[in-house]
Amino acid sequence: MGKLTYVKSASQLVCMDRGYGPRTGKGMSMLGIIANGSVVIEDGIIVFAGSDALAAQFLSSIQDEVEVIDASGKVVTPGLVDPHTHVIYAGSRENELELRLQGAKYIDILKLGGGILNTARSTKEASEEELIGQSLARLDRFLLHGVTTIEAKSGYGLSVEDELKQLRAARALNDRHSIDVVPTFMGAHAVPDEYIHNPDGYVDLVINEMLPAVAENGLAEYCDVFCEQGVFDNVQSERILKAAGRLGFKLKIHADEIAENFGGAELAAKLGAVSAEHLLKASEEGIRALAKSGTIAVLLPGTALFLMERAADARRMIDEGVAVALSTDCNPGTSPTVSMPFVMNAACLTMRMNPAEVLTASTINAAFAIGRGEEIGSIETGKRGDLVLFDVPNYRQLQYYYGMNLVHTVVKNGRTVVKGGVLVDRYEPAD
Amino acid sequence: MGKLTYVKSASQLVCMDRGYGPRTGKGMSMLGIIANGSVVIEDGIIVFAGSDALAAQFLSSIQDEVEVIDASGKVVTPGLVDPHTHVIYAGSRENELELRLQGAKYIDILKLGGGILNTARSTKEASEEELIGQSLARLDRFLLHGVTTIEAKSGYGLSVEDELKQLRAARALNDRHSIDVVPTFMGAHAVPDEYIHNPDGYVDLVINEMLPAVAENGLAEYCDVFCEQGVFDNVQSERILKAAGRLGFKLKIHADEIAENFGGAELAAKLGAVSAEHLLKASEEGIRALAKSGTIAVLLPGTALFLMERAADARRMIDEGVAVALSTDCNPGTSPTVSMPFVMNAACLTMRMNPAEVLTASTINAAFAIGRGEEIGSIETGKRGDLVLFDVPNYRQLQYYYGMNLVHTVVKNGRTVVKGGVLVDRYEPAD
Ligand SMILES: [Zn+2]
Ligand SMILES: [Zn+2]
Repeated sequence: MGKLTYVKSASQLVCMDRGYGPRTGKGMSMLGIIANGSVVIEDGIIVFAGSDALAAQFLSSIQDEVEVIDASGKVVTPGLVDPHTHVIYAGSRENELELRLQGAKYIDILKLGGGILNTARSTKEASEEELIGQSLARLDRFLLHGVTTIEAKSGYGLSVEDELKQLRAARALNDRHSIDVVPTFMGAHAVPDEYIHNPDGYVDLVINEMLPAVAENGLAEYCDVFCEQGVFDNVQSERILKAAGRLGFKLKIHADEIAENFGGAELAAKLGAVSAEHLLKASEEGIRALAKSGTIAVLLPGTALFLMERAADARRMIDEGVAVALSTDCNPGTSPTVSMPFVMNAACLTMRMNPAEVLTASTINAAFAIGRGEEIGSIETGKRGDLVLFDVPNYRQLQYYYGMNLVHTVVKNGRTVVKGGVLVDRYEPAD
Repeated sequence: MGKLTYVKSASQLVCMDRGYGPRTGKGMSMLGIIANGSVVIEDGIIVFAGSDALAAQFLSSIQDEVEVIDASGKVVTPGLVDPHTHVIYAGSRENELELRLQGAKYIDILKLGGGILNTARSTKEASEEELIGQSLARLDRFLLHGVTTIEAKSGYGLSVEDELKQLRAARALNDRHSIDVVPTFMGAHAVPDEYIHNPDGYVDLVINEMLPAVAENGLAEYCDVFCEQGVFDNVQSERILKAAGRLGFKLKIHADEIAENFGGAELAAKLGAVSAEHLLKASEEGIRALAKSGTIAVLLPGTALFLMERAADARRMIDEGVAVALSTDCNPGTSPTVSMPFVMNAACLTMRMNPAEVLTASTINAAFAIGRGEEIGSIETGKRGDLVLFDVPNYRQLQYYYGMNLVHTVVKNGRTVVKGGVLVDRYEPAD
C-alpha cells in the first residue's frame, strides 16, 4: 500500500449524511456521526471510515508504516469548504469600516474613492508575484481555520489583462498552496471608471473579449456576475451568463444582496445556475424557484454582520427545500475575515441555523456549490483525505463555544498541515 | 538592573490616553499611539515606553542581558482585561443553545432543569481540584486571546460552603496561573431550589452567613448581585449590597439585562457601585445617573449576540459621559466564549463603538472596573509589563479583520507567555 494516515479514536466522527447531490430539508440535520470513530487515508484518499474496532481490524493485516493522529476527545469533520471568496486582492480598506460606523453608506464610500474600484486600483498596481504573495498569506490563515478548499473569484482586474492576471494568480495559489482553489471569472464585478457612461460597452467587453480569453486559457470553471441595482441589471447579467454558458462555464450569481425585488434569485433559477449568493433580499418566489431548480443558496452571514444588515432568511430557505451553503465572502470591503468557524457561529446566532445544518452547509453543500461534491465534503471511502480535528468532544460545542477558533489539526490529502493550531506544512510538495 | 524585556519597533504602540480615572466621551477615542515604538520592562514593571530611537538611547548604557521581542509590523497594546467572568464552573450546557434556536425562552430552559441551577449542581458535585482544573484550561484559552487579567465571580455555589469553595478556587487560579484573577462574591446569583418559596430567607443567608464568612477569609474584593425580575428585586439587591459595603466590599451589580424599567442602573448609581453590568434595558435616567456617579458600564455584546437579543446602547452611554468597559461574561449558559478579541468585534459591529473606543473599553476602562486602573490597562512607566502583540500593522485592523484571533505574542509581567499564537509559559513561577 501507499502512504497511510490513521486518524484514530475521534470522540465524534462527523461523516455527513449519505446521499446524492446537495443535502436539503431534514437531510441538512443528518450528520452520520460515528462515536469513537477512525479514518484511514491512503495516498491522500479515504480508504476506511468507521468504528475504532473495525479500523483496528482493517489495519491489522497491513505491515506498512502508518502515521497515527490521535483524535481522542475531539470532533473530526470533513475539511471545511469555502465556496465564495474574493481572496486574490492587494491592499486593505479598514478606513471604510470607520466611515460606516459613522453612518456612511455604500454610495458615500464610493464617492470618497472607496469600494471595489479602490481595490481594483491596488490590485492592478501590484505585480503578479506581489498579488500571489499577499493571497498566500491569506490562504495560510484559511488553513488555520480548518478550510481545505476554496473558490476564488476574479473581479478586481476589470480589464482583459488584469482579469487574466488575477486568474493566473488563482492557478498559482492552487499549485503552490495546500489549499485547493476553484477559479471563477467575475469580470462583471463592477463597472470600471472608463465605462461609467457606457456600462453596456463594458458588458460587451466582458462577453466579447474577457470570456473568450479566459476560456481559451482554461483559467476558470465558473462565471459569476454582480446582479444588483446600480451594478449590472438583470438584462446585462443574463447576457453575460448566457454567453458564459455557451463557452462551457458553470454559473454563479451575486443575487438580491441590497435592493428589494430585483429578481436575482429568479434569474439564477431560470439560468440553472449552480449557486446564488447573498440572497438577503430574495423574494419568496425567488426562494421557491431556487428549490425547484436545485440552485444552491450560498449565504454569507459574516458579511451581513460586518455591514450591520439583517442576515438572509436561511430558515425559510431550508423549509422550502433549498440546499444552503455557507461562506466567508472573504474580500477587503465587506468581509475581510477568513474564518469559516466564525461564519458558522454567525449562521447559528443570526440566522438560527442549528449546529448540524451549519456543518452540512460548510462541508458537503459547500462542496457541491463549487462542483466538488463527489470528491470532498464528507468522510467516505473514495473521497479525498481532507479532515479537521476540533478541540471539543461533540459537534454542538462548535457553535456553543462561539467566537473562538477551535481547530486543532488539519489534514489535507492525508498530510498533516496544521497541528496544535500551528501551521506545519504550508505548501504543496513540488513533485 | 533586574530582568529586562525589550519589546522593540512596534508599528503602533498603543499606550492609551493619559489621565486619571476611567476614560469618558472623546477621551475613549484617544489612544496615545507611538509609531515605531518600544517598551522596556524591568522585573515585570514598565520602565520605558517611547520611540525606538529613545529606547535605543535608554538601553545603550545598560550592560545586562536583555530579552528582545521583535514587534515590527505589529500593534502592541496593554494586556486585555476582562472585568466580568463566571469562569469558575464545572460542566457545559450546549443543549440549551439548541433549545433556544428552537424558540425556547429562559423560563422554559429553567423548567427543563437548565440554567444557573444546572451549573450550580455540577459545580457542587465537582471536587475543588476538578473545579480548578477545568477553570485553568479556560484561563489558558483566555491567555491565547490576549487577556492578562480577569475578574471571576462566585455564584454557582449558592450555599456557604460551596460559595467559599468557588472563591478558594479563584484564589488558586490567581496563584497558579499567569493570569491575575480579581475575585467577586456573588452568592446572590440565583435563588437555590431549597429557598424557592422563601427567597428572603436566602437573602438573609447571604447577608448573615455568606458575606461575613467571605470577608473573614479575605476571599473577595467585590460583591455583586443579579438584580432582575424573578431573581433579586431592587429591595433585596440593595439590602445585600449595603451589607457588603459595610463589610468593606466594593460593589458591582448585574443591572437591567432583561426586564424594562427595573431601575438597576439607578440603584448602581445610588449605591456608588464601581460598575453596572449588562444594561441592555437601562433607562435614559439610569444612564445619566451612571455618568453622574462615575459608575462604569460593563457591556457584554457577546452575550447579547449569543442570546439573540439587541445589544446595549453603548453610543448613548458614551455620549452621556459614561465610562464604558467590555467583557466576555464568560459563563456556561449565556456566553461560553473566552475571546475578548471577538467581544471587541461585536462591540464595534453590534453597538457601533469605534475601534479606538473598543480598545479603551478593553484595557484601561476594564482595569478601572476591577479596581486596577493604577496598575494595568495602559502602557506607562510604573505599570505592570502586560502587553499584547497583534499580527496587524494598525489598531483599526483589529476590528476590520473580524472573527479572527490576531494575537501573536502575550507578555505578562515581562514574561513571554504566548508566542506565535502558542502557549509557551502557562503557570506562575513557584517562588
Ligand atoms: Zn462576493
Ligand atoms: Zn454575569
